[in-house]
Amino acid sequence: MKKIINSIDTLLDESLNGFAKAHSDIILLNNQPHFIKRTKPAQARKVAVISGGGSGHEPLHIGFVGSGMLDAACPGQVFTSPTPDQILAAAQAVENGGGVLFIVKNYAGDVMNFEIAAEMLDCQNATVLVNDDVSFPKTHSTGRRGVAGTLIVEKIVGAAAEQGADLAACKALGVRVNLATASMGVALSSCTVPALGRPTFAISDTEMEMGVGIHGERGRETIPLISATEIVGHLAAAINDELKPQKNQPVLLHVNGFGATPLMELYLVYELAAQFWQQRGVNIARSLVGNYTTSIDMAGCSITLSILDEELLRYWDAPVNTANLRWGC
Amino acid sequence: MKKIINSIDTLLDESLNGFAKAHSDIILLNNQPHFIKRTKPAQARKVAVISGGGSGHEPLHIGFVGSGMLDAACPGQVFTSPTPDQILAAAQAVENGGGVLFIVKNYAGDVMNFEIAAEMLDCQNATVLVNDDVSFPKTHSTGRRGVAGTLIVEKIVGAAAEQGADLAACKALGVRVNLATASMGVALSSCTVPALGRPTFAISDTEMEMGVGIHGERGRETIPLISATEIVGHLAAAINDELKPQKNQPVLLHVNGFGATPLMELYLVYELAAQFWQQRGVNIARSLVGNYTTSIDMAGCSITLSILDEELLRYWDAPVNTANLRWGC
Repeated sequence: MKKIINSIDTLLDESLNGFAKAHSDIILLNNQPHFIKRTKPAQARKVAVISGGGSGHEPLHIGFVGSGMLDAACPGQVFTSPTPDQILAAAQAVENGGGVLFIVKNYAGDVMNFEIAAEMLDCQNATVLVNDDVSFPKTHSTGRRGVAGTLIVEKIVGAAAEQGADLAACKALGVRVNLATASMGVALSSCTVPALGRPTFAISDTEMEMGVGIHGERGRETIPLISATEIVGHLAAAINDELKPQKNQPVLLHVNGFGATPLMELYLVYELAAQFWQQRGVNIARSLVGNYTTSIDMAGCSITLSILDEELLRYWDAPVNTANLRWGC
Repeated sequence: MKKIINSIDTLLDESLNGFAKAHSDIILLNNQPHFIKRTKPAQARKVAVISGGGSGHEPLHIGFVGSGMLDAACPGQVFTSPTPDQILAAAQAVENGGGVLFIVKNYAGDVMNFEIAAEMLDCQNATVLVNDDVSFPKTHSTGRRGVAGTLIVEKIVGAAAEQGADLAACKALGVRVNLATASMGVALSSCTVPALGRPTFAISDTEMEMGVGIHGERGRETIPLISATEIVGHLAAAINDELKPQKNQPVLLHVNGFGATPLMELYLVYELAAQFWQQRGVNIARSLVGNYTTSIDMAGCSITLSILDEELLRYWDAPVNTANLRWGC
């Protein structure tokens, strides 16, 4: 395993300490248990928006804590859910009279631990489940996975909370954005989880994984390596079938790298995806291209489309000041 | 070769089109020849700050075009200098009565082509050469390479130009920042140049390249894979010997990923580097961590230190609104 680390046991701690030091103007790290919260507490009665999940997907979620987005994030060990006490401590630290909204990616461990924390929490709370990955059918046994669309839910709900929306409104908004969002990914390589020390799955030089998640699991199918246009055709068609965006409807097009894919390839994918929807008359009103929801060092990318009405566009455009998403501030 | 591309011949065009489409609020792409310029022209008599170089280092330089930083950037083919006509066309497009400042990384091809363009240019112009890589001694035959410190020169000179500094002042400032900046990098893997189709150099699973550049060339030495603390010790010592920052002196600490290194590892490197200089009483006043000067899909990172006085800190903090560096706007 080739990684720049000291030891598997200290990796998360050392990395979180570095993150906190590098962004001390925006966030604070709590140790034992780990969570990241804003340096400056939000105004009283604002809904506290909290997310979290296994580490290894940075900048998701810690990179999105700050004014206009999350109040706190709970990083678990690599690809491991945060614990209930971690989530509870984060919620208690940032709850400010407006209740707590958890934004949770749909994985069994995350769902369970956020549920336990919600039960233990002594204040008004609600949860938005994100399940934007259309690689599998809606009827899949454990439901669809939450992937790169999570950032969009966090940004829009975060903006609404900042502007004073109450808990019920934030929850309804999150559910609405999730329903309007679909993602699908492709991988050219596996990632290497530090504790495992080798790639999670084997893949030959001429193959790729279509419909891949963000935890180094195999995709929906292993197929021969195809051209960028064909890759984008696969991903965009699956997303388009799900969301069926109408002519002139404004959408946000997000191309997300999994960690080891150069920006040059991500912008190429963006270009081809933009062409796909422009040919169908869809209005690509907003764009986001880069490594935002990663899978450690996996090569590959995902495409996310989100249908945004005027209200959602306004929330997307609202000022945000976090380590890894920043505008209007 | 595993890449998400259609063909080597169309990669750059398709990617630049995607970049331009995704960031059409900030920049415009000119074709034949290629350059990226701001959507909104700068005010009259502002010095036009222009950079460029081979593609494959994104977001450098195209991602730094916009208010408060570059006026234009000239992307060459992958790891290939932009042509003189490309540079000349960019300069003529953005020159606005204040003259042109070229910021050029020290590579023979870049230096030559920017020089030719400067000679052909029918207006006042000057050049700042960036050579921040301390992997090789100052006496190295072709001089030291320009690497991740280039971003810092571009940001600070860009801010000064925006605030009305004239050409001589911008050039002097760029020279000053370059002298106050030192970088060194390490690679765990080679990159794969699309036109070559295979890794540029072979490296075993237990080795690393110390003192590596950003073009897939071998480093100063191939050594056994060591711990993160030892890696940072090597890099930081070389940089520290060069710059000799004083106690309490404010510095900018920049940890740059080469493209395939997870943020988690970059923040770990940042933490260790911060400890290195904090132990020496140096004041880490500003930080930047992420993939900014990449080498396609190379695994590894570089550390850059820049000694900043109050004036330079003010320019670093000044508003910037580009695709990949944005604050205060």
